[in-house]
Amino acid sequence: MNGDKCKIGVVAPASRISEDVAASVPALAARLYPDRTPEIVFHPQCFASHGHFAGDDETRAQAFLDVANDESFDAVWFARGGYGSCRVVESIMPRLRQPSREKAYLGYSDAGMLLAALYRAGFMGVAHGPVAQDIRRDGGDKAVARALAWMIDRAPGSLEPAVDGVRKTAAFNITVLSHLLGTSLEPNLDGHVLMLEEVGEAMYRIDRSLFHISASANVRRTAGIMLGRCSNITPNQPDFGMNEEEVARYWCGRAGIPFLGRADIGHDAENKIVPFGC
Amino acid sequence: MNGDKCKIGVVAPASRISEDVAASVPALAARLYPDRTPEIVFHPQCFASHGHFAGDDETRAQAFLDVANDESFDAVWFARGGYGSCRVVESIMPRLRQPSREKAYLGYSDAGMLLAALYRAGFMGVAHGPVAQDIRRDGGDKAVARALAWMIDRAPGSLEPAVDGVRKTAAFNITVLSHLLGTSLEPNLDGHVLMLEEVGEAMYRIDRSLFHISASANVRRTAGIMLGRCSNITPNQPDFGMNEEEVARYWCGRAGIPFLGRADIGHDAENKIVPFGC
Repeated sequence: MNGDKCKIGVVAPASRISEDVAASVPALAARLYPDRTPEIVFHPQCFASHGHFAGDDETRAQAFLDVANDESFDAVWFARGGYGSCRVVESIMPRLRQPSREKAYLGYSDAGMLLAALYRAGFMGVAHGPVAQDIRRDGGDKAVARALAWMIDRAPGSLEPAVDGVRKTAAFNITVLSHLLGTSLEPNLDGHVLMLEEVGEAMYRIDRSLFHISASANVRRTAGIMLGRCSNITPNQPDFGMNEEEVARYWCGRAGIPFLGRADIGHDAENKIVPFGC
Repeated sequence: MNGDKCKIGVVAPASRISEDVAASVPALAARLYPDRTPEIVFHPQCFASHGHFAGDDETRAQAFLDVANDESFDAVWFARGGYGSCRVVESIMPRLRQPSREKAYLGYSDAGMLLAALYRAGFMGVAHGPVAQDIRRDGGDKAVARALAWMIDRAPGSLEPAVDGVRKTAAFNITVLSHLLGTSLEPNLDGHVLMLEEVGEAMYRIDRSLFHISASANVRRTAGIMLGRCSNITPNQPDFGMNEEEVARYWCGRAGIPFLGRADIGHDAENKIVPFGC
């Protein structure tokens, strides 16, 4: 941190955000921290457009590196999820320099691809939590305030209640974790409390992803799984016959993974922060 | 085969079918093979219902075993895909007896979970191709006729044109393959021509699945990938910017997997048959 002023760089390795997010987030930060307003820099790449993505693969990778490798930044904050981090992570990782190891990384959903790779590479400041775009949710100010409280002060009140500083933790979107298992991004989850959440998937897809995840030898070595919220579950034809908790308990039971209850994470304004590791 | 009459058992390890399928398929078979009409037995489990599934897990597993372990049957034919095979495959595999090794298995889509496990276990008669339910498609008689021609006569005309009896082949739905990688079902694909098809997924999901699949060391040891049809691609917001072939070429290129062109498989009446192995 430069004196007592935190400098946060926002990048979008997946989908783009609109300019109004870049206006309202710093305004909120100024209201919340009038005496030590954090400097929040939205990399211009956040507003770029290339098909599905916030700029082409190299543009997104370079923007991430611009912020991560700049020692003046204290935190790399994901603008939003969407889709696209898996396309850039393998070009980012070998180009990260020493300053990148000394800062925080905060995001969730698609960002889990990069969080996983950074944590696997030994980065200490990686966390699952709200993105800048969350300001557009109902009650989104709360989510952004929580993200700022963690990035600026590592405020204990921002953390998911099961984060106790003793047990290692990690958190992922279910579909994202399923798709990074077996890739060069997969971190060692040995002994971790693994928190999982989902959004916008049908129950049969959640069931299939948990079949896949619970079959992983790595996941079977975790301390257990906690289930976050699964929101906007799309209709299942016919009704699936089980809800997300029943499904999670079922696959944990089959795989011999302790089911440790519910986690206070999800695609919503209540999404609490889960650091990777201790 | 009992004399020259083929006996086919139909089971539904995933979703249920309606009774009309069980009426129209044997009628078509009688028209196509008047002198040696195959006996097609729809296990009652095909019409059972348990939430999403054609009966609960044990009912579906037992029905599969009833047919697979009965030496009077020449073929186990999947009633349809849908979802559910991954829930029963691990209870089926250890209960298969010798007669199960001496018959054909035909299906695709969700059935890929079981085809994979059977092929991994050394079963020689496993193939990717039409299911009974395909009779309900436009032109579906053609698909069912092709399935029968393969099950009854191993007719060369039923095969995907790249199947040459020399190179090993395998075929999967993209999402299904992505979800079985790393599980106890994953077969050795070393040296295989791997054909992939998809239905009803957005382009960003196809891209993400191919990221995952192409990262697999097993898939990287294939002879190459052929892309079948990707049908009913759901709208991508915004437009993804690449089509399925561009995406497949991209990930093959990144992973050093030869892209071997298009395959004549897909969720449609033209779906040709791809035996697993030689």
